[in-house]
Amino acid sequence: MPNAEILSIGTELLLGDVLDTNSQFLSQQLAHLGIDCFWRTTVGDNKGRIKEALKIALDRSDIVITTGGLGPTADDLTTECIAELLGAPLELDEDVLARIREYFRQRGITMPDSNTKQAMRPRGAELVPNRTGTAPGIFFAVGKESLEYADIASPENSRVIVTFPGVPSELKAMWKEIAGEKLRERFVPSAIWSCELKHVGIGESALAEMYEDLLSLPNPTVAPYAGTGECRLRVAAKAETLEQARQLAMPVVEKIKERSGIKCYGTDDDTLEVVVGRLLKERNMTLAVAESCTGGLVSKRLTDISGSSKYISLNVVAYSNDAKERALAVPGEIIEKYGAVSPQCAEAMAWGIRRAAGADIGLSVTGIAGPEGGTPEKPVGLVYLGLSAEGFYAGKQLNYFNQLERREIRFRTSSEALNMVRIFLLEPAWLAS
Amino acid sequence: MPNAEILSIGTELLLGDVLDTNSQFLSQQLAHLGIDCFWRTTVGDNKGRIKEALKIALDRSDIVITTGGLGPTADDLTTECIAELLGAPLELDEDVLARIREYFRQRGITMPDSNTKQAMRPRGAELVPNRTGTAPGIFFAVGKESLEYADIASPENSRVIVTFPGVPSELKAMWKEIAGEKLRERFVPSAIWSCELKHVGIGESALAEMYEDLLSLPNPTVAPYAGTGECRLRVAAKAETLEQARQLAMPVVEKIKERSGIKCYGTDDDTLEVVVGRLLKERNMTLAVAESCTGGLVSKRLTDISGSSKYISLNVVAYSNDAKERALAVPGEIIEKYGAVSPQCAEAMAWGIRRAAGADIGLSVTGIAGPEGGTPEKPVGLVYLGLSAEGFYAGKQLNYFNQLERREIRFRTSSEALNMVRIFLLEPAWLAS
Repeated sequence: MPNAEILSIGTELLLGDVLDTNSQFLSQQLAHLGIDCFWRTTVGDNKGRIKEALKIALDRSDIVITTGGLGPTADDLTTECIAELLGAPLELDEDVLARIREYFRQRGITMPDSNTKQAMRPRGAELVPNRTGTAPGIFFAVGKESLEYADIASPENSRVIVTFPGVPSELKAMWKEIAGEKLRERFVPSAIWSCELKHVGIGESALAEMYEDLLSLPNPTVAPYAGTGECRLRVAAKAETLEQARQLAMPVVEKIKERSGIKCYGTDDDTLEVVVGRLLKERNMTLAVAESCTGGLVSKRLTDISGSSKYISLNVVAYSNDAKERALAVPGEIIEKYGAVSPQCAEAMAWGIRRAAGADIGLSVTGIAGPEGGTPEKPVGLVYLGLSAEGFYAGKQLNYFNQLERREIRFRTSSEALNMVRIFLLEPAWLAS
Repeated sequence: MPNAEILSIGTELLLGDVLDTNSQFLSQQLAHLGIDCFWRTTVGDNKGRIKEALKIALDRSDIVITTGGLGPTADDLTTECIAELLGAPLELDEDVLARIREYFRQRGITMPDSNTKQAMRPRGAELVPNRTGTAPGIFFAVGKESLEYADIASPENSRVIVTFPGVPSELKAMWKEIAGEKLRERFVPSAIWSCELKHVGIGESALAEMYEDLLSLPNPTVAPYAGTGECRLRVAAKAETLEQARQLAMPVVEKIKERSGIKCYGTDDDTLEVVVGRLLKERNMTLAVAESCTGGLVSKRLTDISGSSKYISLNVVAYSNDAKERALAVPGEIIEKYGAVSPQCAEAMAWGIRRAAGADIGLSVTGIAGPEGGTPEKPVGLVYLGLSAEGFYAGKQLNYFNQLERREIRFRTSSEALNMVRIFLLEPAWLAS
């Protein structure tokens, strides 16, 4: 099996000014392709060290993927270093130059001379087009024995370098469009089809236990991954063609969906807010949220989705008791008798926001996110959720006692709240139990 | 000058399951100490490759800092690999073992046998205590010429390895407590005192231009850094003692604060939400927010701060026109005549939320975050802010036309909104102009 190495280039990384999310993205993509990644290296914008890192990487890896250093300025050195190391003369690519000129023309700017540099490519390199920025990447073969550039068309030249810009959105777009496919064709004799089944309301170890029978399957493979407040089962099948691989995987995917039932909330790019939005649109229903301890996070997540105005009209962050009474018509006696962090208050808030917004569903969150504000009876991490709809009410208690910090309590609570809406839209009876 | 290399160890990193934030943290800390970091490497939980990576790192770097691989399980190999590579026998540290036992005892658990492993340390290693977890780090000297362990007390043994666990909170606590200091003493002959001056409402290049006279200073040095919707000037001074360094830097810090005026919103750990919260508490004032396009993000950021209930009572996310009319008493005619994305509507929203919440300050946000919803007259990225207080109103228009995606438009808008409150609390006249 071929193995890959990721080489991140940029002094801003080594100074800690920029968090290297590109390496994580590429690692995930390689894992999904079934290509091992044994090494990742980061170097600054320094010619000597970039060449040294390339040399070390080519010595121990079949595929070297670089990010960064493709810009127009003097400290963007990646292409130059590859050309020098492999003795491949840099040549001006007129097509690329025309495309870069066009990129600037469309934005009403004359192309700065420095951008000509981005149209230079080492002899023998194939281009990886960049449709969202100016710097294309290259796909470049290295001879089997020596550090020399080789014919990219010949598959026996098994070592390759692929370059990407450091801008995450450009890198992702380029990967999706072409690079993954190019690597797959060349290095993965079989096609891999994979699918992630996203779960909520069950921990990683419980999930692993539930699917013990599938975790040892050879093909498709099934593996659990943990996330924050949720976890995933990844099903991956290998076959000669993608379609064959898909057909191999689908029975297992279906089996998991059936066994997990409502605990499986979606696949791949789905998030809880995406799924909730989709269900609300399908059912032509509206939602309104009243938040206390999450302070707007549930609302923020729901409205992260473009087009959420179709089902969200009004949300309220009622932090104080007074606000709960005034904006949500929570009776003062409830707060007095049971406190603002109580099942009773959650119920009144859910009812109140539904009425205030004229929405089909009212969702409420009240709790203590800490680190201040806890008491022995109501410790930090105690949260109540409520969901009100026509002829329906369900409440839920969450206990994150002394285990999590404020940020995580708030995020997990927001996921539980979104999940409550999802379950209500799918199987309301499940909530009542 | 000594240089450092960061070695992240863990297969979960190479699979992309975990984002390597430790490397960024360590990079920043090294930069602040004035120690160059030229390389970062990531390897999986594999003995051969960990030793190989350590060897390469020791060949080219004076300081090798590892993270990860200190846990109790079979795939935690860092300490073992160091011991093997340098021929230092592993010895049981009874004090450490007692401390680990105590850690479990306090949590009412019997220590699993596997944790004994965490009390093993290579002969000659000094400990870096871990007060928040079970795995202590080690501080270990390597001989000048050969790959052998050496006397840590002798400063001429100039190569060292420092190990940290992979849990970010443990790593940070250990670094703060001891490791930074240990490295500083050994490798940085002078003390470095530094301070970041955080700016908002001015771009990085404008800031660099404004401080052209200071950017070439030799000691203290002044350097600009860009962030999302804000930027920083870092002032760093070297001297024999920390106090002398501070005294050297302070006149420049004061000069910057004076010249930047209101554009400098804080230092170091300050964020806009922290500063706004502090000012509100100082002035004993309350704030209420009415959001449309930011959908709860301003409210979420304000309530990220523990204790924000002292100045936040009620915030409203009014996404629809109807919600703006009902919850914020925005007159229907205003929306009909000018639209919901208009200076007039922002003003009515700010006034409406202030009244609804009974707050001292009402802040409003209305705009088009996209990618849907734009028109030729009101394109995606057009946002209006409003701030209402007793006898005061100020509005502001933001234009992120076709430049940014939804997430960034929303985040930058939330920063501008928070900054508007900050300026109101400091120099309201500045807003009116």
